[in-house]
Amino acid sequence: MTERIPTREGVLAAADSVAGILPPSPLLPVEIGGRNCWVKAENLQPIGAFKIRGAWWRLSNLTESERAQGVVAVSSGNHAQGVAWAARRLGFKATIVMPADAPQVKLEATRELGAEIVTYDRANEDRDDVAANVIAEHGGVLVHAFADPWVIEGQGSAGVEITQQLGRQPSRIIACCGGGGLSAGLAIACPEAKIHPVEPFGWDMVGQSLAAGELVRAAADAPRTICDALQPTATKPLNLALLSGRAEPGVAVTDEEVRAAQRFAFAKLHLVLEPGGAAALAAALAGKVPFDESSVIMLTGGNTDPSSFAATIAEGE
Amino acid sequence: MTERIPTREGVLAAADSVAGILPPSPLLPVEIGGRNCWVKAENLQPIGAFKIRGAWWRLSNLTESERAQGVVAVSSGNHAQGVAWAARRLGFKATIVMPADAPQVKLEATRELGAEIVTYDRANEDRDDVAANVIAEHGGVLVHAFADPWVIEGQGSAGVEITQQLGRQPSRIIACCGGGGLSAGLAIACPEAKIHPVEPFGWDMVGQSLAAGELVRAAADAPRTICDALQPTATKPLNLALLSGRAEPGVAVTDEEVRAAQRFAFAKLHLVLEPGGAAALAAALAGKVPFDESSVIMLTGGNTDPSSFAATIAEGE
Repeated sequence: MTERIPTREGVLAAADSVAGILPPSPLLPVEIGGRNCWVKAENLQPIGAFKIRGAWWRLSNLTESERAQGVVAVSSGNHAQGVAWAARRLGFKATIVMPADAPQVKLEATRELGAEIVTYDRANEDRDDVAANVIAEHGGVLVHAFADPWVIEGQGSAGVEITQQLGRQPSRIIACCGGGGLSAGLAIACPEAKIHPVEPFGWDMVGQSLAAGELVRAAADAPRTICDALQPTATKPLNLALLSGRAEPGVAVTDEEVRAAQRFAFAKLHLVLEPGGAAALAAALAGKVPFDESSVIMLTGGNTDPSSFAATIAEGE
Repeated sequence: MTERIPTREGVLAAADSVAGILPPSPLLPVEIGGRNCWVKAENLQPIGAFKIRGAWWRLSNLTESERAQGVVAVSSGNHAQGVAWAARRLGFKATIVMPADAPQVKLEATRELGAEIVTYDRANEDRDDVAANVIAEHGGVLVHAFADPWVIEGQGSAGVEITQQLGRQPSRIIACCGGGGLSAGLAIACPEAKIHPVEPFGWDMVGQSLAAGELVRAAADAPRTICDALQPTATKPLNLALLSGRAEPGVAVTDEEVRAAQRFAFAKLHLVLEPGGAAALAAALAGKVPFDESSVIMLTGGNTDPSSFAATIAEGE
């Protein structure tokens, strides 16, 4: 493991590197309740999620000996695809530990990108233990989904793009939040912007940890959430340290608010969002976060099974 | 009516005018059967379709006395929304003649934009007659959906944007085609590009007219198509003249090919496309048109009822 922490210089370097392989994701105008702001359509990335940024920057910075070992990642699907995409492009091996109940599209897409997949039981196995066993047995460098300095810098590249697209730093960034890698990266990228982490109700471990001033783990009986991408059981000290005193208080959204946001994105933006990718939009639509005409809502992912998306949009009629 | 014909200078002026009110629509990379090309995501326009371009340019060029009369348009929904959007923005009245069986979302969206709607029976009434009656009774300037020089120039602004985004003219543009306004505009905008009009099977009146060298009308017993946006019963002499000897032979796609394209856009691009907006992509996916890495597929619209979209994507599982 590394002692490095993410820096603004690192975020700017990550943004340069990302710009060399990916066009900027669209920043699109949106009207919510008669007021204008912006959405950053990270669901339009080649893997359908912003995770391609952090994975690319982390894997680009591996040493020769680390590359030879290959990488191991733990992910419900989007970080998995990001790591698999970057590993394929850089020409080394990726093994991904994924929950057996991850959306089918995410499992398939990760496999199609050439990664080896090891599944685990989300209810009864600790994903970090499974990853540790894989590494003990076969070797490999762990690429953590959110508590890695390069991953955080890579995710922050979205904030650099936004600043270039707007011609200034945004007033606020409303961000879907799982472990807090994206929120931390955006906070570093845009020091003048207020950062609002949005999490699923009952899984708002970043928000609760910020309020408590220490790590808070999800309750064993935490409610189910449709936001499969946003349910790590806790954030990590690195993320909490970067966000403490910097991020606004966390916001929690319900499944129904998330589904309403998916329907809004379908009907008004003509974008496909997965539940976890619609959380920030849900908070804005529900009036749970302030925004103005230079605020940006992150649309973080669009990888969702057709049947569940069909049920969600049909339900609104 | 005007004696004017669309020109390249007009297209360039239209592109300047459009750039003043709308950000360029995203040009996104896509991989089809292991080969790369581009999609132009016009479904991400504020009205969910490229028609905003031609409507804006036409309405911007009305004289003072024409503005005072207001405008009348005939449309199954996307031109309707474009005209309503532009009229609202420019501050004058719009009356739209729409088929009673147009998608509910298109009727509602047009009404929400402040237009007055007159519906007609697609099977038993001629839409141009209905519009003529509206104008005879209440006055107003007809804004034709595709056979108007300003509308054609406005649609061509998409080709100017593509050229700027690619840094050169595309090799080919594969375009969803109804009456041929977009195809004609693109042909003028990108003189070095091959233009492939793609139409629904049985409603390929541009393709048939190009082959015959004269206007061919849809058969009275033409098959049903899910592409509600692409079924005028004939193109017009202006469009045919502009496309003759310029466009490649027309391509016709089936409903099933169109649905497959909608599913592909959902799963791989995370974009919502209406059937008519997916026709060009359908032709590329079905191997019916050639393309290379500097070819562009137009994704022309995303306005579709949730229930039919849900059925389409669920069907693929």
